[in-house]
Amino acid sequence: MITIAVDAMGGDLAPRPEVEGSVLAARELGLRVLLVGIPAEIKRELARHSLRGLSVEVVPARDVIAMSDSPAQAFRRKKDSSAHVAARLVRHRQADALVSAGNTGALMTVARFVLGTLPSVQRPALAAPFPTSRGGVTVLIDAGANVDSKVGHLLQFAVMGEIYYRVIFGTRRPKVALLSIGEEESKGNELTKEVYNRLKDLPLNFVGNIEGREVFSGSVDVIVCDGFIGNVALKISEGVAQHIAAVLKKALKSTIASQVGYVLSRSAYREFRRNIDYSEYGGAPLLGVRGVAIVGHGRSNANAIKNAVRVAAELTHAQLNERIERELSSLPIAVGT
Amino acid sequence: MITIAVDAMGGDLAPRPEVEGSVLAARELGLRVLLVGIPAEIKRELARHSLRGLSVEVVPARDVIAMSDSPAQAFRRKKDSSAHVAARLVRHRQADALVSAGNTGALMTVARFVLGTLPSVQRPALAAPFPTSRGGVTVLIDAGANVDSKVGHLLQFAVMGEIYYRVIFGTRRPKVALLSIGEEESKGNELTKEVYNRLKDLPLNFVGNIEGREVFSGSVDVIVCDGFIGNVALKISEGVAQHIAAVLKKALKSTIASQVGYVLSRSAYREFRRNIDYSEYGGAPLLGVRGVAIVGHGRSNANAIKNAVRVAAELTHAQLNERIERELSSLPIAVGT
Repeated sequence: MITIAVDAMGGDLAPRPEVEGSVLAARELGLRVLLVGIPAEIKRELARHSLRGLSVEVVPARDVIAMSDSPAQAFRRKKDSSAHVAARLVRHRQADALVSAGNTGALMTVARFVLGTLPSVQRPALAAPFPTSRGGVTVLIDAGANVDSKVGHLLQFAVMGEIYYRVIFGTRRPKVALLSIGEEESKGNELTKEVYNRLKDLPLNFVGNIEGREVFSGSVDVIVCDGFIGNVALKISEGVAQHIAAVLKKALKSTIASQVGYVLSRSAYREFRRNIDYSEYGGAPLLGVRGVAIVGHGRSNANAIKNAVRVAAELTHAQLNERIERELSSLPIAVGT
Repeated sequence: MITIAVDAMGGDLAPRPEVEGSVLAARELGLRVLLVGIPAEIKRELARHSLRGLSVEVVPARDVIAMSDSPAQAFRRKKDSSAHVAARLVRHRQADALVSAGNTGALMTVARFVLGTLPSVQRPALAAPFPTSRGGVTVLIDAGANVDSKVGHLLQFAVMGEIYYRVIFGTRRPKVALLSIGEEESKGNELTKEVYNRLKDLPLNFVGNIEGREVFSGSVDVIVCDGFIGNVALKISEGVAQHIAAVLKKALKSTIASQVGYVLSRSAYREFRRNIDYSEYGGAPLLGVRGVAIVGHGRSNANAIKNAVRVAAELTHAQLNERIERELSSLPIAVGT
């Protein structure tokens, strides 16, 4: 039975959505879930659910990493945190995968150093799925695990992201693109121009550069970039969405007619919000570590946690890491270049 | 009298909005405008307006740079384009400033090499103003004039952007921030960490790093970044806005009640679109060249052109370049480092 370790103390509302989402996952998917954290708090939440026939267990952890903790300090000083304990469960094969909606930077550090990286992987990378205008999903890799990436790192991100996309979204030949400032091969900075040139030679369905304007269009499946760019790109997207929501709310409330319109269309807004809700896609996996590690949004609700557990199980079942290792080790990508 | 050369052939709908916007600017602001381009086309548009008492002249140019032209090729092969002729008018002091809604890359190349850069400026940079949730304006510099910027370049962008903000938006001590992946000084890549350290020593109101999520919040006035990042950030923002509009339209049309809401709130949507319309801010100046060069959006309407002409006149009147040269030459920024 596939076993998933859930960091019950990670998210903004922990442990409630973590516990509820884990119970849902155990019930609907028949998985074994280990809830890691402060036992009293987890048990108080578990008491709200019927656990009959479910494989849900509590694994104690004394400490909790806060959202405001520095990743490096949290890694060094909070060895008994729920994130550390969950990662050690994976390292010692007591769990197949780890899910956390906690401090993303800290979780990446913990996963990277407790689990270690795969032999052929130079740097693990965060793969962030998001919905597109066409109704599909595009994955951006690296969403912020690394900065100052070199050419070889981006090539590895492309290979890992493509495998993940195939496994989770079932596309046989995902379209892989490079985030840049123009579609032509000649557009970009030193890094992307060299990466473009090298991506052409890999056995991927590489479709060339993609500009920022097209990221949400759904025209490609996997978008490759350095983690500094990826972090800025995703966070600015969140900022724009908040900005538009604020402007729209103000505009719609400014006249009687549009107030009526606002009330009438409220259910449509709810659907809209669901549409841009990342929780359906089950969080962002940190690809390239030994084991499976999924980072959820801090605001994850129970549904988001359930989906993250589901994705963790699917990646385990599909032997993602064996595939990554097999494909990367057979490719002519000089590490560190 | 301040004289502005307008590239009449630049935008997607040229020369109609260029001519109308120039006539409006001449009438409302008492400026002299030189409309540069194919005379027959410009005159056909001019015939739609009353020019009595206005200082609007036509300067012929035989060629036109297309949106699809490569900037380098357009610069070399279309020496008689309206953009080239307009830039030469500025170079030869027959005009104070140049406005174009054409191919941004080509215009930057033409402006940079026909006008030349100021003695203390290493690289000109594009300063892009945009509206914020607080109702103010934030300027992002560099929005895409350069890639692979070095530390000294970003320091110069900060100084130039701050002067521009003071001149156009009247803020005495604009807040200057560095775009990065975390607020703390320790967050960023090699470039931004070094720039952060050096910005602290400049006589600017430097407020530290800003994350992508905060870019549209209005918490700072000037945001400094490399042009690759700036281009991706602004284009992805456009893409998110389009994406949200598409999702919202679909959601609002899906039920009868929300259809009614949609109709009733249509005027509110128009106001919303006006609110996120960049045209109010008069285009993006390329800072650091000899003379004033303003790049408008390809979709600029007459109002956008008028505002770009107004901003061009204000920057001329305020002796922007003298200020930039004076401040940069007095600062301890080693060029090219």
